[in-house]
Amino acid sequence: MSALRTVTDELAGVLGPDRVITDRQRLRTYECDGLAQYKVVPGLVVLARDAADVRAAVRACARHRVPFVARGSGTGLSGGALPEAEGVLIVMSQMRDIAQIDAENQRAVVDPGVINLQLTGATSPDGYYFAPDPSSQSVCSIGGNVAENSGGAHCLKYGFTTNHVTGLDLVTPSGETVQIGGKAPDPPGYDLLGTLVGSEGTLGVVTSVTVRLTRLPQEVRTILAGFRSVDDAGAATSAIIAAGVVPAAIEMMDALAIEAAEEAVHCGYPEGAGAVLVVELDGHSADVAGEFDAAVRHCEAAGAFEVRVAADDTERALIWKGRKSAFAAVGRISPDYIVQDGVIPRTALPQVLRQIAELGAERGVRVANVFHAGDGNLHPLVLFDDAEEGAAERAEEVAGGILELCIANGGSITGEHGVGSDKAKYMPRMFTDADLDTMQDVRCAFDPDRISNPGKVFPTPRLCGERPGRRQGAHPLQEAGVAEVF
Amino acid sequence: MSALRTVTDELAGVLGPDRVITDRQRLRTYECDGLAQYKVVPGLVVLARDAADVRAAVRACARHRVPFVARGSGTGLSGGALPEAEGVLIVMSQMRDIAQIDAENQRAVVDPGVINLQLTGATSPDGYYFAPDPSSQSVCSIGGNVAENSGGAHCLKYGFTTNHVTGLDLVTPSGETVQIGGKAPDPPGYDLLGTLVGSEGTLGVVTSVTVRLTRLPQEVRTILAGFRSVDDAGAATSAIIAAGVVPAAIEMMDALAIEAAEEAVHCGYPEGAGAVLVVELDGHSADVAGEFDAAVRHCEAAGAFEVRVAADDTERALIWKGRKSAFAAVGRISPDYIVQDGVIPRTALPQVLRQIAELGAERGVRVANVFHAGDGNLHPLVLFDDAEEGAAERAEEVAGGILELCIANGGSITGEHGVGSDKAKYMPRMFTDADLDTMQDVRCAFDPDRISNPGKVFPTPRLCGERPGRRQGAHPLQEAGVAEVF
Repeated sequence: MSALRTVTDELAGVLGPDRVITDRQRLRTYECDGLAQYKVVPGLVVLARDAADVRAAVRACARHRVPFVARGSGTGLSGGALPEAEGVLIVMSQMRDIAQIDAENQRAVVDPGVINLQLTGATSPDGYYFAPDPSSQSVCSIGGNVAENSGGAHCLKYGFTTNHVTGLDLVTPSGETVQIGGKAPDPPGYDLLGTLVGSEGTLGVVTSVTVRLTRLPQEVRTILAGFRSVDDAGAATSAIIAAGVVPAAIEMMDALAIEAAEEAVHCGYPEGAGAVLVVELDGHSADVAGEFDAAVRHCEAAGAFEVRVAADDTERALIWKGRKSAFAAVGRISPDYIVQDGVIPRTALPQVLRQIAELGAERGVRVANVFHAGDGNLHPLVLFDDAEEGAAERAEEVAGGILELCIANGGSITGEHGVGSDKAKYMPRMFTDADLDTMQDVRCAFDPDRISNPGKVFPTPRLCGERPGRRQGAHPLQEAGVAEVF
Repeated sequence: MSALRTVTDELAGVLGPDRVITDRQRLRTYECDGLAQYKVVPGLVVLARDAADVRAAVRACARHRVPFVARGSGTGLSGGALPEAEGVLIVMSQMRDIAQIDAENQRAVVDPGVINLQLTGATSPDGYYFAPDPSSQSVCSIGGNVAENSGGAHCLKYGFTTNHVTGLDLVTPSGETVQIGGKAPDPPGYDLLGTLVGSEGTLGVVTSVTVRLTRLPQEVRTILAGFRSVDDAGAATSAIIAAGVVPAAIEMMDALAIEAAEEAVHCGYPEGAGAVLVVELDGHSADVAGEFDAAVRHCEAAGAFEVRVAADDTERALIWKGRKSAFAAVGRISPDYIVQDGVIPRTALPQVLRQIAELGAERGVRVANVFHAGDGNLHPLVLFDDAEEGAAERAEEVAGGILELCIANGGSITGEHGVGSDKAKYMPRMFTDADLDTMQDVRCAFDPDRISNPGKVFPTPRLCGERPGRRQGAHPLQEAGVAEVF
């Protein structure tokens, strides 16, 4: 009997048959996450109700060395929840209780399957919200946000998921339950929270998340500014930040993205704009008034030919509708597209956008740009028609070339979508062997059998213990001469 | 020849004899850090000039399995830099260059020996400063701040060292050079920064630190409020925070601490006060004005009988002088004292302060309280006279009892001084075996031979690989019956 079959029988016995999916047709539902270009039908799906279910599944996998993958809402864009054909997919989306809202200490304790926006809905009556706001926030889960360290438009001011998680319950890959952090900041011992958040499921399965709640701002003001060029919009972005203003968000869209959004949702963006900026300011009213004046002034000084201010919530919603629908809208002007995710230093924005345009022109591929300008997090949309011979390959080349540009300009291969299955191959471009080995040493500390979301993040997974010199009793430097060593 | 002797000879050859201290008299200078109750004369001291020196020292130690301890300015209060008698003390205080100030990206790259206040001095002409402000900031090193994740009075608003470090160069205990993080936030792969910051030297030696710079505030206002009791002052603290005001600092001193400070520096605190609060507000002028009104209102509503505002920098300096000299001032009213460091939820302040007073009264020991009220970080000063028979033991008991109170009230055994040599024994009170094992697994990933600052943080260090079930090929659950496992 195969190891997977043994695990299936054990779990059906312990959890009950309705918690365990083995039907091929139903298994196929889980074959991919938001990045549909990778597909693997899982060997078994477990629908977890609580931490005990998760522990049971992980322990069964550990006993029989069967790989497992945890999945939240399945909205990830890097293939981080891609299943294993001979493994178990642990579906967390039914663990959806908000266990506690502790407004006095600005904390909430939630199940990993709780939807991002659900938590904001539950805490806003007390005057709070959960700040990380990925575009998928109406459907994505907080457990998934933790796995990928998700960001969003307002992360410029409020930080990523990692800045809003103060505690986690973790089932380690050997099935132990560990508490990491808690409600208080700065516990003694190693602070493993940062390592866990964004570890993409490779260090175990999170079964409870303690998050920091953020006060709803007293006032919000939203500006829409039209520029002749992305250079001008980039200059405005730099000037605003350099002036010491920290907007809640600075979003940029280029002409092609504006065209797509306009066709799709008629958001009424300034006509003839080569780029628009959406600048949102929030906080105390007195503060916002001053920052608002500064932001408008810097937009105008950088050459904005139109600066519009949302007069009310309806106008604000329309401005954001254009921005938020941009990805989907691109589907109206192109049959297929790749969403890329990369980061560059904010000061390199104009230069990198020019290089991206040149790269696209060279290969005859159109690229629309929609992105978080404030923190240099690019989301180029590489357009193609799969019906056209070789078009997908050219688009892939351009998408890959964009990441090379990010790296060459001192940036990074992912801003908020994660490495997952998709970008593991680029990791050696950003990290030395020693850097990657150190990460894998940590991975081995948690998961010596590499059964927790294998094949993700690391380009060349190695067996734990195979690192030269890290075996018990053997040290690579012991045999090396002194001259070589220093 | 002993392993230490071999290392000494090798390093004298490679670094030159003036970098290597072997003279017993000179070695004695390094026998303790700021916690003088633990003393060990190091076997060898190396004065590192640069990362290459550190690497040479660590590699020599790794080759011969000789333990090493890194030391900055030696101001730590938990014995974190306590040397090893048969080990090497690597002194970092001569690595004091500020390699880069990148004001545009709000970053600086510094050597670990750079003094905390030196960096603020170097960046203030550009309008920036380094926010973490331990009381020892005029002498403590940034490398030491990283090791201990140091805090200070203004961490309520600005966070601890971990919130201001974005990159580190690390020499791992096997002598490899690894880059962790960088200038950009949220790099791909594991975010090991949080684990490194506050790891108290147990994961290697940091040779370069990239820090976030904070803008100097437009305005600062400082309030001194006198209360009849610590209960009233605690209530004011809770009310201010609950109102959504985040002061830069809220510091509290009780009657005994006020008496000591008054005698020492004549700071003119309100007469007859059972407690004073120092509340500092900073930020945009418009913001500060509103927060100031709210803070004064809440102090008065909680029963403040005097609220004084610093009219200028001189008055502000005098208010802070009382607070900052409090530790030293206690030396004038008591021959000896222990500085304790613990954390409680802010809401538990009045209750825990009462319990501390009761505990002291029971044992006939006086306790002065000076602390960061805003984040519940207590610094009780336990007074005693070592000349009196049994007094030191009673003081130790009270100091330990205070930590028990912190734990019982949902707090923690250290706020900002670290675990070090001093508090390792309390770790099992806060963490389960699984929690501590997970931390030690990570430690083993970096330092399989446990040569990097051994004996610190962990109460019962174990040989790497000795954890049951984590040996290659053996899994504790494999032999366990299913019924036992679920």
